[in-house]
Amino acid sequence: MEYKFSDRVLGLKPSAIREIFKYAADPSYISLSAGNPAPEAFPAKELAAISAKLMQDEPILALQYSVTEGYPLLRQHLTKYMKETQSIGREFDDILITTGAQQVMDLFSKSVLNEGETVICEAPSFIGSLNDFRSYRAKLVGIPMDPDGMNTEALEKALQTEKNVKFIYTIPNFQNPSGITMSLEKRKKLYELAKKYEVMILEDNPYGDLRYEGEALPTIKSFDEDGIVMYAGSFSKVISPGMRVAYAIGPKAVIQKMTVCKQGQDVHTNIWSQVLCYRFMTEYDFDAHLENLRAIYTKKRQLLLGLMEEHLAPHITWDDFNGGLFAWCHLPKGIDMMTFVQKALEKKVCVVPGTAFLTSENEPCDAFRINFSTPTDEQLTKGIKLLGETIREMI
Amino acid sequence: MEYKFSDRVLGLKPSAIREIFKYAADPSYISLSAGNPAPEAFPAKELAAISAKLMQDEPILALQYSVTEGYPLLRQHLTKYMKETQSIGREFDDILITTGAQQVMDLFSKSVLNEGETVICEAPSFIGSLNDFRSYRAKLVGIPMDPDGMNTEALEKALQTEKNVKFIYTIPNFQNPSGITMSLEKRKKLYELAKKYEVMILEDNPYGDLRYEGEALPTIKSFDEDGIVMYAGSFSKVISPGMRVAYAIGPKAVIQKMTVCKQGQDVHTNIWSQVLCYRFMTEYDFDAHLENLRAIYTKKRQLLLGLMEEHLAPHITWDDFNGGLFAWCHLPKGIDMMTFVQKALEKKVCVVPGTAFLTSENEPCDAFRINFSTPTDEQLTKGIKLLGETIREMI
Repeated sequence: MEYKFSDRVLGLKPSAIREIFKYAADPSYISLSAGNPAPEAFPAKELAAISAKLMQDEPILALQYSVTEGYPLLRQHLTKYMKETQSIGREFDDILITTGAQQVMDLFSKSVLNEGETVICEAPSFIGSLNDFRSYRAKLVGIPMDPDGMNTEALEKALQTEKNVKFIYTIPNFQNPSGITMSLEKRKKLYELAKKYEVMILEDNPYGDLRYEGEALPTIKSFDEDGIVMYAGSFSKVISPGMRVAYAIGPKAVIQKMTVCKQGQDVHTNIWSQVLCYRFMTEYDFDAHLENLRAIYTKKRQLLLGLMEEHLAPHITWDDFNGGLFAWCHLPKGIDMMTFVQKALEKKVCVVPGTAFLTSENEPCDAFRINFSTPTDEQLTKGIKLLGETIREMI
Repeated sequence: MEYKFSDRVLGLKPSAIREIFKYAADPSYISLSAGNPAPEAFPAKELAAISAKLMQDEPILALQYSVTEGYPLLRQHLTKYMKETQSIGREFDDILITTGAQQVMDLFSKSVLNEGETVICEAPSFIGSLNDFRSYRAKLVGIPMDPDGMNTEALEKALQTEKNVKFIYTIPNFQNPSGITMSLEKRKKLYELAKKYEVMILEDNPYGDLRYEGEALPTIKSFDEDGIVMYAGSFSKVISPGMRVAYAIGPKAVIQKMTVCKQGQDVHTNIWSQVLCYRFMTEYDFDAHLENLRAIYTKKRQLLLGLMEEHLAPHITWDDFNGGLFAWCHLPKGIDMMTFVQKALEKKVCVVPGTAFLTSENEPCDAFRINFSTPTDEQLTKGIKLLGETIREMI
C-alpha cells in the first residue's frame, strides 16, 4: 500500500538530537549531547517511600482513571506555590497538568495555530518545540539572541512586518541551547511588545530553579495583568523527567481549549506520578531539595568551565551561562561546524550541532551544544579533552 | 485580550461524558456513566511489589528520560506476545508505546489526516476518538451497526461515494458504547473492502481480553498481509488506566511518522509505568490474571442482566454484549432519550445519553449507555432499580 500522509507530517524529520541519542546510547561513546538530569539529582529514596505508602494505603488513587485537568491537590498546591514564590497566576488564569512540558507546547499550538500562521522564536531555540510548531505548519521566524536575550529591535521589526503572528516563544532562563538568560529590561520590553501588537507569549521555564550564580529574575508571566502569557513549568529537571509531569498556567479560555485537546490526546497525565510530585513537594523540604540540585550542578559547571579553559580555549569560545544544563560553544572562523561534530563523533564524543536548533537547518552556524548534567565527572573530563584534540587537529 | 483560537478547536466541546463525570464524582450520585475498570480488578499488590523492587534496584531506569519508541524490553515482549497469541504483526510492522490508546488515535490521525478528509466510523462509536478526529477537522461518516457489527453494504456505499476517505475506525470487540462484536465474516469483508478501496483501518481493541461468553474471534490485524491496519492495544482495562500505557502495531512507515509526532507531543510515555507493565506481564501469570478479571466481570454482568430483566424489561431493551464494560439500552417509542437521562439524574443516577456517541449530536437516538464495571453490586442494584422507576414514571 502506498501510504498517504498528512501535509503536516510530510516535512517532519526525527529530531537531530534524538538521532544522535542513538550513538549516545552506545556505552563506548561519551555523550555530551543529552539534556538529562544527573542521576544523583533524583530524589529516588523519597519517591520510593511515597510510592510504597501510596500503593499500600490508596492503590486505587494511583491506578484508576483520573480527570483531564490533573490531580486536584497538585493543581491547588501548584497554584498557591507559584503565586507565593513567583507571583505567577491571576484571577483570570487556570492551571492544567500535562504529560511533560512538551505537551504544553503541543496543546497550546494545537489550540491557537492555524496553518501558515507565524510563531516568533529565539534563534537558536529548543528543537522539540520548533518541531512541534512545524507540525501545525507554522511559519517560524527566528530572532537573533544578544548576550541578554532576544534582540528586541529585531523582535519589534518582525512584529511589524510578519503577518498573522500568533505568539512569541521564549525560554527566558538559561535558554536551551544557548544558556542565555534574558535581562529584566528585555523581559519587560518583550511583554510590552506582545501587548502592543496583541500576540501571546509562550514562556517555557524548565530550568528556572537551576541558577548557580547571580540573582533570580522575575518570570514574564509574573508581569501578566492582561492575560497574554501561557507559562510552562515542569518537574522534569527538578524531580524526574521519566514521570512526565508538567503544567501550564495561563488564561482560562485558552486552558479550557487545551484541556479539550488533551482529552483527545491522552485523557489525563499518569496519576501515580502526579500524586508522587504532589506529596514530594508537600511532605518533604522542597526548597532544600532544590538547594541540593544547585549544589550538584554548580560543581559540575565549575568542572566544565575549568576543562574548557584548559582544553578548548582560546580556539573555542562559549556564552555565559549562570544556570541550566548547557554550554553553547562557538568554533573559530574557518572551521566547519558539521565537520567538527563528525570528527568528534569519530573520537566517540557526541555533541549536538547548532544547526539542529535553528528555524532552518541550512542557515550558517558556528556553534555546538555541550550538556554537563548527564556525564560523570570522568566522562566530562575525557570528553572535553577529546573535543580539545579535535579542534587542535582541525586548525 | 481577545483570544484567537485555531479553526480546529473552535467547534470542539468538552466531551459529554466528561461533563457527566462531574455529577458522577459527587458521591451522592450513582454513576453508571464511567468506563472505569472495577477497583478489585487492579493487580495492586503485584504492582506495588514490582515498583518497590524497581525503585530499590534500578531507580534511575524509572526516573530518567527514555526513548520515544518505548521501553525496549516492553516493545520486544509485546511484539512476541501479540504475534504468538493473536497472530498480530508481520515483518513490515513496528510497535510504538503510547500514553494510553487515546494517543494512538491522535498520533495516527495527526499523521494521516488532512483537513476535510473523511473518517468512516461505526455509529455509534467511542466519543473520545470521534472528538480527536474532529480536532483534525475530519469529516465523520457514521455507518449503522447491525447486531453483528458495521453494516458492510452501507460501508461499501460510503467508500464508493465519499471523497478522500483516509481510514475506517472500528472497535470490533464489545464495542463502546454498543457492546456489539463484529462477526468473523464481517471482519473479513471489512478488510477486503479497505484493501479494494485503498483506505487504512484503525482497529481499536481495548476490550478484546474481556470476553465472558462464546469463542474469541481473530482481530482484523491478524489478517493483515498488506500493511493496511493500524492496531491499538491497551493496558488500561487489563492492568491500570491511571498509568496510561498502550501501544500501536502497524506498518513501519506509519509508525515512524507517529513516532516523530509523539516526540513533539510528550517525548515518551511514563517509563516507570512501562517497566511495571513489562514486569507484570513477564514475572507474573498474566493469563491467570486475565482469567481473574473475566471472573470478576462475568459476575457483574450476570447481576446486571438479572436487574435489567427485573426492572427495565419489557420497556427498555438492550443489545447482546458478550464482553466489555457496557450495556447499550433502547427506550420505547415515544420516550425522549434526553428527558429520560435528565429524569434519571434527578434521581441521582448517571447514564450517558446515546447522542454523545454519534457523529452528529443532533441525530435522533433512542439509546443510553450503562457501565457495569465501576459501580459496586449495591450501587448497580440501586441504580438499575431507579432507572426502572424512571421509565415507569414516564410511560
